[in-house]
Amino acid sequence: MNATAHAPDEFTFARSPMVNGFSRDDIEKVDPKTRSLLERRERVLGAPYRLFYRNPLHAVRGSGTLLYDADGLDYLDAYNNVPAVGHSNPRVRAAVDAQLGQLNTHTRYLTDGIVEYAERLTSKFPAPLTQAIFACTGSEAVDLALRIVRHVTGGEGIIITRNAYHGTTRAAAEVSPSLGAGNRIPPTVHLVDAPDPVRQPDGAVAETQFLASVDVAIERFRAAGIPFAGMVVDSVLSSDGLRLTPTGYLAAAAERVHAAGGLYIADEVQPGFGRTGDWWGFERHGFVPDLVVLGKPMGNGMPISAVVGTEALFTSFGRDVRYFNTFGGNLVSIAAAAAVLSEIEDRSLLEHVDTVGSELLEGVRSIAADDITRRGESRIVDVRGAGLFLAVEFAFPGSAAEPDPAAALSLVNMLRERRILVSASGTYENVLKIRPPLVFSRPDCARFLDGFSAAMRELD
Amino acid sequence: MNATAHAPDEFTFARSPMVNGFSRDDIEKVDPKTRSLLERRERVLGAPYRLFYRNPLHAVRGSGTLLYDADGLDYLDAYNNVPAVGHSNPRVRAAVDAQLGQLNTHTRYLTDGIVEYAERLTSKFPAPLTQAIFACTGSEAVDLALRIVRHVTGGEGIIITRNAYHGTTRAAAEVSPSLGAGNRIPPTVHLVDAPDPVRQPDGAVAETQFLASVDVAIERFRAAGIPFAGMVVDSVLSSDGLRLTPTGYLAAAAERVHAAGGLYIADEVQPGFGRTGDWWGFERHGFVPDLVVLGKPMGNGMPISAVVGTEALFTSFGRDVRYFNTFGGNLVSIAAAAAVLSEIEDRSLLEHVDTVGSELLEGVRSIAADDITRRGESRIVDVRGAGLFLAVEFAFPGSAAEPDPAAALSLVNMLRERRILVSASGTYENVLKIRPPLVFSRPDCARFLDGFSAAMRELD
Repeated sequence: MNATAHAPDEFTFARSPMVNGFSRDDIEKVDPKTRSLLERRERVLGAPYRLFYRNPLHAVRGSGTLLYDADGLDYLDAYNNVPAVGHSNPRVRAAVDAQLGQLNTHTRYLTDGIVEYAERLTSKFPAPLTQAIFACTGSEAVDLALRIVRHVTGGEGIIITRNAYHGTTRAAAEVSPSLGAGNRIPPTVHLVDAPDPVRQPDGAVAETQFLASVDVAIERFRAAGIPFAGMVVDSVLSSDGLRLTPTGYLAAAAERVHAAGGLYIADEVQPGFGRTGDWWGFERHGFVPDLVVLGKPMGNGMPISAVVGTEALFTSFGRDVRYFNTFGGNLVSIAAAAAVLSEIEDRSLLEHVDTVGSELLEGVRSIAADDITRRGESRIVDVRGAGLFLAVEFAFPGSAAEPDPAAALSLVNMLRERRILVSASGTYENVLKIRPPLVFSRPDCARFLDGFSAAMRELD
Repeated sequence: MNATAHAPDEFTFARSPMVNGFSRDDIEKVDPKTRSLLERRERVLGAPYRLFYRNPLHAVRGSGTLLYDADGLDYLDAYNNVPAVGHSNPRVRAAVDAQLGQLNTHTRYLTDGIVEYAERLTSKFPAPLTQAIFACTGSEAVDLALRIVRHVTGGEGIIITRNAYHGTTRAAAEVSPSLGAGNRIPPTVHLVDAPDPVRQPDGAVAETQFLASVDVAIERFRAAGIPFAGMVVDSVLSSDGLRLTPTGYLAAAAERVHAAGGLYIADEVQPGFGRTGDWWGFERHGFVPDLVVLGKPMGNGMPISAVVGTEALFTSFGRDVRYFNTFGGNLVSIAAAAAVLSEIEDRSLLEHVDTVGSELLEGVRSIAADDITRRGESRIVDVRGAGLFLAVEFAFPGSAAEPDPAAALSLVNMLRERRILVSASGTYENVLKIRPPLVFSRPDCARFLDGFSAAMRELD
């Protein structure tokens, strides 16, 4: 499945309005009951909303790794990272219910729960990451981390990756080119290409090119008179298409950022809390960032996020600026987050993720190999994964590395019709994104592989 | 209690780091058990966190309008607007629990709950405000509303009030001068003084001056080459000190904003959902804004917020930009918000707010009058209120309108020692902020007035 080396920008690529987005042109194909709800929804929810799939899923119930539609049919959830410890997790539910019956208030009163949870959470991080600030969403946490970095350095310039996604507030959207052409990236933000395991198969060369592009970005800020603030990168490069190899280059990038007076933010909204089999994605790169942003799976769907950082940075910011978020660190979200930590620990989910993740990866690789044997050519150009986050990258047969987003999108929709939920992503939108709840079981794995194998044959 | 007219900026005023913030200099006065938790908290929560009161409250339980400390003592909550239908409200709790046992997912699947709630919510607004977009916090909703306004108008310049507070994301903090000197307000934001019922007792003059200052702001943007985007104002001017009169000037300001090509955002995070006895604060001004921002009481503490707006505006934005907020409109927060709407309706809370709010206002005014009779001079220069949002403004005796923030702060702390919770705010930090849950009862009102009367005598 190896391809010859290509420059990162070799493929000109017209991005779709949204990968795997429902198009209103397909409304006639939607079944009448679903269509009625969809049309009610369109009347009251604003146009910026989008739905997944050519045939949107009407979800009415969830349990463990399953979602159920209005007809009671079950869908294997191989996509949603938020319900990490399972849809309708009973322990999270009980924790939330108990807390809602006792107290739900903000951080300007002293309360026990937030202190106990912050102690547990920060104990999972290497020194000197000893303090936390809580917010409600990953976007808010990214926005706050950027405020801190810019305040402390006095800079504005931020380096991100080419197809990064970091959130939806104005400041977070400015560092989220994956939101598309209508979302403006200002001159204070510079894009670099992360090493591409398909088009830059030589890891050493890829790393050298990446670090050179970081140097160029820093130099361009200098030349433009934009004081440098730092860099924010998703530690597994999710929206760039899960760029997992080589490892180590983020540590080297952080060193260059520091040398230029900047700070490094690790966006752990996707990899954090065990997704990769480690607690945090930056561990794969063997370094300690200045600030860490947490979100999605943190409360299993209850809104909670955090910035974890050093006392020195928070003190420098906090001397001048106070931060209060009415719902940030509310005791109910904290109770949910504490239950999630307990589930990860008590059910040994990090080890589980390693085991099932490897099984899933081997299974998908085997199906990809069968596909080549059967057809005599490779449509899947790479299968990669870390823990329970897998990417299956599609390219045109024979062309080695020319992205085939249509194949990925077809697979996504064929799997949906087989009641298996995944989506697509990546700089070239040609990467199948497999990212199930962490409690994905071995039978779930078998069901997925059966469905994936059948869908690959259907793709013929 | 009337004062002579003063120009809004007559009083030079050095702002405190935070009104009613705990100072670490007072740590020795905190009792040992509380101090131990406080010190644990300082180790793990970042320095930007702040606590209320000289003697911080360690809260362990809440029920209705009462909070309980670690010794089981009850505190009358006359401050918290978030638990609008009461701390630990059983209906909200049941709704959350039921939903957590069924499904909690995002908006890229079709689900019934969010559509049903959006239909109920938008039905409370005048045409053409027919659509909603959900987020998790008021900050996120303000940030989104600003993104929409700037995208649609192509402008950047935003007009706000002198001591406005609109949130904590970077874009929201830029329109929140009340966050203090360390929080930078950029040249794209222009401050105007809202009519001051104490220092501008002639409402017609105050309105004329206010509208002239809006014109000046628009002209200054033009002169500076900053394209105008619009105006965002809290419809009851909470952080400016609850500037309730005259009414109507916000409608006139919106007309000027429109004439200059801008859009008007009503920040209803404070007044919304019945606080003033109406559903929305803008009703007092007799006009319909372009966008409305909702937050705090919406889910009784479960994180949920919204931007309500017109189909035309959302479509114009949504054509170019998609908006997805992982936890925004999650079904559990939606279930809580639906229960809050039901509580407001079924318990006739709007009418209740009118009745108890009037009783509270009369009671406080009577105590203020007694204070003058007893001392022969007025320390309370104004008592004003709308529904269950009251302001008691302190000035130095004899000086008519020179703000006395120390008196307000003393009252706040004396009331806390009497186990009644309020805080202070305002451009001059001299305004007692009384803003209890909407379920504040007549006995609660009596308890508050007893405590307030005693504290006023203690102030002697």
